[in-house]
Amino acid sequence: MIITDSLLDFFLETRSHTEAICEPLEIEDYVVQPIVDVSPPKWHLGHTTWFFEEFILKPHTENYKEFNVDFSFVFNSYYETVGKRVVRSDRGNLSRPSVKKVYEYRNYVTEGIKKMFLENQNDTLNGLLEIGIHHEKQHQELLLTDIKYILGNNPLLPEYSKSFEDHPLESHEQDWISIEAGIYEIGHDSEDFCYDNELGRHKVYLQPFSISNKLVTNGEYVQFIEAGGYERFAIWHAEGWDWVNQNRVSAPLYWHKVDGSWHHYTAQGLQQVDSAAPVTHISYFEAFAYAQWKGNRLPTEFEWEVAQAYFSWGKRWEWTESAYLPYPNYQKVDGALGEYNGKFMVNQKVLRGSSVATPSKHTRHTYRNFFHPQLRWQFTGIRLAK
Amino acid sequence: MIITDSLLDFFLETRSHTEAICEPLEIEDYVVQPIVDVSPPKWHLGHTTWFFEEFILKPHTENYKEFNVDFSFVFNSYYETVGKRVVRSDRGNLSRPSVKKVYEYRNYVTEGIKKMFLENQNDTLNGLLEIGIHHEKQHQELLLTDIKYILGNNPLLPEYSKSFEDHPLESHEQDWISIEAGIYEIGHDSEDFCYDNELGRHKVYLQPFSISNKLVTNGEYVQFIEAGGYERFAIWHAEGWDWVNQNRVSAPLYWHKVDGSWHHYTAQGLQQVDSAAPVTHISYFEAFAYAQWKGNRLPTEFEWEVAQAYFSWGKRWEWTESAYLPYPNYQKVDGALGEYNGKFMVNQKVLRGSSVATPSKHTRHTYRNFFHPQLRWQFTGIRLAK
Amino acid sequence: MIITDSLLDFFLETRSHTEAICEPLEIEDYVVQPIVDVSPPKWHLGHTTWFFEEFILKPHTENYKEFNVDFSFVFNSYYETVGKRVVRSDRGNLSRPSVKKVYEYRNYVTEGIKKMFLENQNDTLNGLLEIGIHHEKQHQELLLTDIKYILGNNPLLPEYSKSFEDHPLESHEQDWISIEAGIYEIGHDSEDFCYDNELGRHKVYLQPFSISNKLVTNGEYVQFIEAGGYERFAIWHAEGWDWVNQNRVSAPLYWHKVDGSWHHYTAQGLQQVDSAAPVTHISYFEAFAYAQWKGNRLPTEFEWEVAQAYFSWGKRWEWTESAYLPYPNYQKVDGALGEYNGKFMVNQKVLRGSSVATPSKHTRHTYRNFFHPQLRWQFTGIRLAK
Amino acid sequence: MIITDSLLDFFLETRSHTEAICEPLEIEDYVVQPIVDVSPPKWHLGHTTWFFEEFILKPHTENYKEFNVDFSFVFNSYYETVGKRVVRSDRGNLSRPSVKKVYEYRNYVTEGIKKMFLENQNDTLNGLLEIGIHHEKQHQELLLTDIKYILGNNPLLPEYSKSFEDHPLESHEQDWISIEAGIYEIGHDSEDFCYDNELGRHKVYLQPFSISNKLVTNGEYVQFIEAGGYERFAIWHAEGWDWVNQNRVSAPLYWHKVDGSWHHYTAQGLQQVDSAAPVTHISYFEAFAYAQWKGNRLPTEFEWEVAQAYFSWGKRWEWTESAYLPYPNYQKVDGALGEYNGKFMVNQKVLRGSSVATPSKHTRHTYRNFFHPQLRWQFTGIRLAK
Repeated sequence: MIITDSLLDFFLETRSHTEAICEPLEIEDYVVQPIVDVSPPKWHLGHTTWFFEEFILKPHTENYKEFNVDFSFVFNSYYETVGKRVVRSDRGNLSRPSVKKVYEYRNYVTEGIKKMFLENQNDTLNGLLEIGIHHEKQHQELLLTDIKYILGNNPLLPEYSKSFEDHPLESHEQDWISIEAGIYEIGHDSEDFCYDNELGRHKVYLQPFSISNKLVTNGEYVQFIEAGGYERFAIWHAEGWDWVNQNRVSAPLYWHKVDGSWHHYTAQGLQQVDSAAPVTHISYFEAFAYAQWKGNRLPTEFEWEVAQAYFSWGKRWEWTESAYLPYPNYQKVDGALGEYNGKFMVNQKVLRGSSVATPSKHTRHTYRNFFHPQLRWQFTGIRLAK
Repeated sequence: MIITDSLLDFFLETRSHTEAICEPLEIEDYVVQPIVDVSPPKWHLGHTTWFFEEFILKPHTENYKEFNVDFSFVFNSYYETVGKRVVRSDRGNLSRPSVKKVYEYRNYVTEGIKKMFLENQNDTLNGLLEIGIHHEKQHQELLLTDIKYILGNNPLLPEYSKSFEDHPLESHEQDWISIEAGIYEIGHDSEDFCYDNELGRHKVYLQPFSISNKLVTNGEYVQFIEAGGYERFAIWHAEGWDWVNQNRVSAPLYWHKVDGSWHHYTAQGLQQVDSAAPVTHISYFEAFAYAQWKGNRLPTEFEWEVAQAYFSWGKRWEWTESAYLPYPNYQKVDGALGEYNGKFMVNQKVLRGSSVATPSKHTRHTYRNFFHPQLRWQFTGIRLAK
Repeated sequence: MIITDSLLDFFLETRSHTEAICEPLEIEDYVVQPIVDVSPPKWHLGHTTWFFEEFILKPHTENYKEFNVDFSFVFNSYYETVGKRVVRSDRGNLSRPSVKKVYEYRNYVTEGIKKMFLENQNDTLNGLLEIGIHHEKQHQELLLTDIKYILGNNPLLPEYSKSFEDHPLESHEQDWISIEAGIYEIGHDSEDFCYDNELGRHKVYLQPFSISNKLVTNGEYVQFIEAGGYERFAIWHAEGWDWVNQNRVSAPLYWHKVDGSWHHYTAQGLQQVDSAAPVTHISYFEAFAYAQWKGNRLPTEFEWEVAQAYFSWGKRWEWTESAYLPYPNYQKVDGALGEYNGKFMVNQKVLRGSSVATPSKHTRHTYRNFFHPQLRWQFTGIRLAK
Repeated sequence: MIITDSLLDFFLETRSHTEAICEPLEIEDYVVQPIVDVSPPKWHLGHTTWFFEEFILKPHTENYKEFNVDFSFVFNSYYETVGKRVVRSDRGNLSRPSVKKVYEYRNYVTEGIKKMFLENQNDTLNGLLEIGIHHEKQHQELLLTDIKYILGNNPLLPEYSKSFEDHPLESHEQDWISIEAGIYEIGHDSEDFCYDNELGRHKVYLQPFSISNKLVTNGEYVQFIEAGGYERFAIWHAEGWDWVNQNRVSAPLYWHKVDGSWHHYTAQGLQQVDSAAPVTHISYFEAFAYAQWKGNRLPTEFEWEVAQAYFSWGKRWEWTESAYLPYPNYQKVDGALGEYNGKFMVNQKVLRGSSVATPSKHTRHTYRNFFHPQLRWQFTGIRLAK
């Protein structure tokens, strides 16, 4: 459990960081939802706030007066336990509450939490607060990638920010790290915060393997494209091949060929692709096909966790070959918070690491991110194993 | 052809009326598109402006500098002749251009037209200007009904305006007007503006018929509901019956049963349904089924045009039994403007009259409105014939 | 009312003609349903039989014993009045009842009708019998076109029959027939059988018009294709243009380009297209676009009915510009038989005439056939007007 | 490698067993495809034959004359390497080739293989023959379950066979088998036939676990239903919950409540559910939800393989918690046969064991079956672990 003084600071810093991410936006950017996976920024602002109101202020504050009784319906995401909610695909249809009203809601709840915290601290409340903070940090990452999707799919391709660098380089030479066979320990093992899906530290036996010390670069990925990687069914999963053909995929998300050279949308608008930077915005299907084409493979999440101490990571969420499954003796939390992880443990792949969009203090080497294999709007990447 | 001095006034009045309709909106309300038939208000503002720029300023002004070359792509609606365009269902995904930018665009083009008009008038330009004005008036009506849809489908059911009265009464008693058999003339017959689909004045032979002097009221429609009208397949078209069941339709659009009594969303928010006011927001399928249930029928558009002099109209667009088809010797205008009407002459029904949302000077007794039979978001109504 | 002696002969001839149509089939051909509009031949055999059982034998024969109580569920088509039924799109999923069993069912019901008829005749029964016969004749046409679809979409393109000629020539020269303006009478006017949608003989006023004495030929249609007719949006309805693009339509149904020359599937298998024969298997959308391209138009159903005495017809069902709507004072029959026509009077176009697949005595100049504008599997054709 | 004399016997026995499975069918039953996952029996007969022709007779027999050059198009399943093919969802649209013709094709190829085998044996050919035999055995199981689906979804619910017992009992008491933690070997380890996905025998570390010696029974599953199992979202995956609601699932496939008691379709037609028999035709989603409800879980495929020696199995394919993923150092075979397994290793769950539909000699304790989590038409079952 973290020290309680800094917990309030941690909370306040998190709340204001969310708003800082939105600072470059026009009001209109807060509202739209171009695809079902992307939520309107306004919704993220409200939903993270609702989480604190619903799980902390309402049950644990005497005579708490909700900011607006309808907001629970508007800002609930998927918690079946907590009642009805706006269907996910309809989030972009809601012009009200206005952005201004949502910021008032944020302030109201932030102040409410602050007041409650200064008056009354205990382990239960601190634990819930910590979850709420991490929940909001998780949404900060989605907020950033959703904003990128909203702006990057606008025909005007507007700039987001001069200062956000979404294509940092890895300057070292590629090399292979060899790990010996043996029994290793997997899972969270400290007092620090983690999600329930990381718990149940347990032994796994690994065969000997090698893993790259460097992410696959744009330059390498262009070779894959030019070698006809998107036209060779033999290196794709059957479902991946269908996905490629139904969606006419021929390059990573946000890539455009302009006058014969590859460009991509970045936080600074449309720019030429830098060969040396790590490739990103590729699906698991593409990561797998690339690895097949190179004669390598993707690491499992266990290999990644064991080997990660020997390489630097943090620029790209890295697709693994592992399916998202419960660890031995996995236990869901009781109540609505138990809906956080377990119910998604089917048909998804694990990603390890973190990305340029991950807020500080929001990852660790045991963190298990997960997405469906076709999704590309996160800052995903490829690290090869063999 | 109307007098040219007043043409500029007519233009300027039209431009400012569009903006007056939007006056009660929050910026967020300009952006969303909850269903494909409804366009974001921002899009209407830009599209009506683009129409003047594309068809008047660009071809007829020397050295005209477009406000923004990308706007043609964003604000073209369906004119295949004029190039690529944003897919209709994607209009609500566009946060940019911002509302502020769209208003700047409006001012730029309004000023451009004004300047051009003061420097150079001729019949061609005046004709185009007149079409552009009527085009914008047509969009004013859609703008109002789209705004109603956006707000009326928001879970917060916000008020639009205290002053817009969308449920006016007809206070006279219902009675039948009898029209004799004979040959009648149909279609536009003056020098005033009309659309190409009204031209080709021609004879039709009508059998004797009677038509109601009053629209069907909410009270009468409630009787239909309570008599199980929505559960009796025998009074519905096969496609209407499928529509009812697939969409679980059991009342007009915007109706909600609250504590056992019918309410509906109005420009002033949720209100109790007034039995005496004419029913609205019903599809052709519902209008037809209602008429079947009453043992009557809907009038044809020819019957309506012949009889309209004997009753008052203008509160509701009135569904007719007529399919939207070309009049004899119908001629499309050459070029892009020829895409205005003719290409929609299949699978749509004609509506006659006008509604509370129709701007002044934007209808006449020969006006032919048309929609697909399932649509309900216009201020549609039912007038019986027999 | 037709003479009763011949009515039994008419019935028996109709029953055996249905079976003659199926004579060239393999058992497997009776079962499949490649698209929802096409029903398995077995289903037609059973459904026409069920019609006699359900509407005549069951209600009008004492102690009638149904052949199989489950068949009502299997062979009802769309009569909501008569109870539950197999969903139309599932007809091709039913391997049972077997073809053998269906033929037993046919014999059982044919014998039942024969016995009833010989014992007991009255106007009601004769009227129902006449409807049942015409119903079966209507299905004979569908049976033939459904068989063509089943075989013509099989990759082996099997022959149906050496003797069925589906591409007869019209040898006369094309010319225009001129009809004067005036009031004409439309609708059925004799004691012979007709459907309810032809009744209500009434006056219409027609403008002067000309109509072709000849159907559009394959050769003419190839010119349309070669002139880029399928790529020119300006001659298509908006919905037609979407249909062309979504379905990648570039020629009539059953046409294949083999070694640079147009072939089509016929009852005798794949054959070279004969330029002189009338084009067929085109949708209303294509018929309309062709007419636009020629600078002509399609006739209305009223023009067709008035002019038909001056030209020969019967090879192709001819698309008209008319929507399928009720005649003045149209009255549906009471009960289930009232579901026959009226409920389809929306979103469909009228076709006039008949085709090579129409059985004898099954058309007349007042007959109104109707289909959705995109359908092509009937022997449709184009006759121009101007 | 198995002894070559018996290989021919093995081949001939396999070929005739496939035909024995079809013996009770009507010709019509061979043709239909009620859902995309189910193939017409005729197609299985042809496809298994095509496999021998395409991969053995064509490449390895001099001057081989194909039975029919079009059959490759008709009977290829998913081998992209081998050329174009009928889209899977269209298999049920093909009435030709006829069943008779398909049996002729079978005989032709069976004789061809026999002749080739008697003239020329070598390891390559024997290896291919062995694969072809196992491929056909795999299809025998699908053939049986597809037939069950075809008949069991026919409204007449016809009997398949008096002798096929699809609901055998397990008569022993339920008990838990405990397995100690430790390193275990997983994967195929003999000279006998296996698929590539079983190879790469390797170590895994297992935590201590217990596994049931008995499958979950119908009686136990009814308790789950009656306890509201299908209405409690908390025990379902999010995707499982959507599946339940979209498909209105409330019992296993083939179950019908008749007069208040549970019946199900069996090979002998509709029968009362036997509480003591193992439940079957449940999806992974249902197996998982059941285990959650019991406070247990499903075993992993590794736990199952290690523990299987201590219990009897073979009545039901048993869902495991494991996703279908490659074993360490998994290598696809070169060429078309390499498309057999690897390309399906995403979004599927592993099933272990075998079922009443599995032909003799077609399973082993290392066999890895796999299906999408929502599928139910196989004889699936539930074995709990904890």
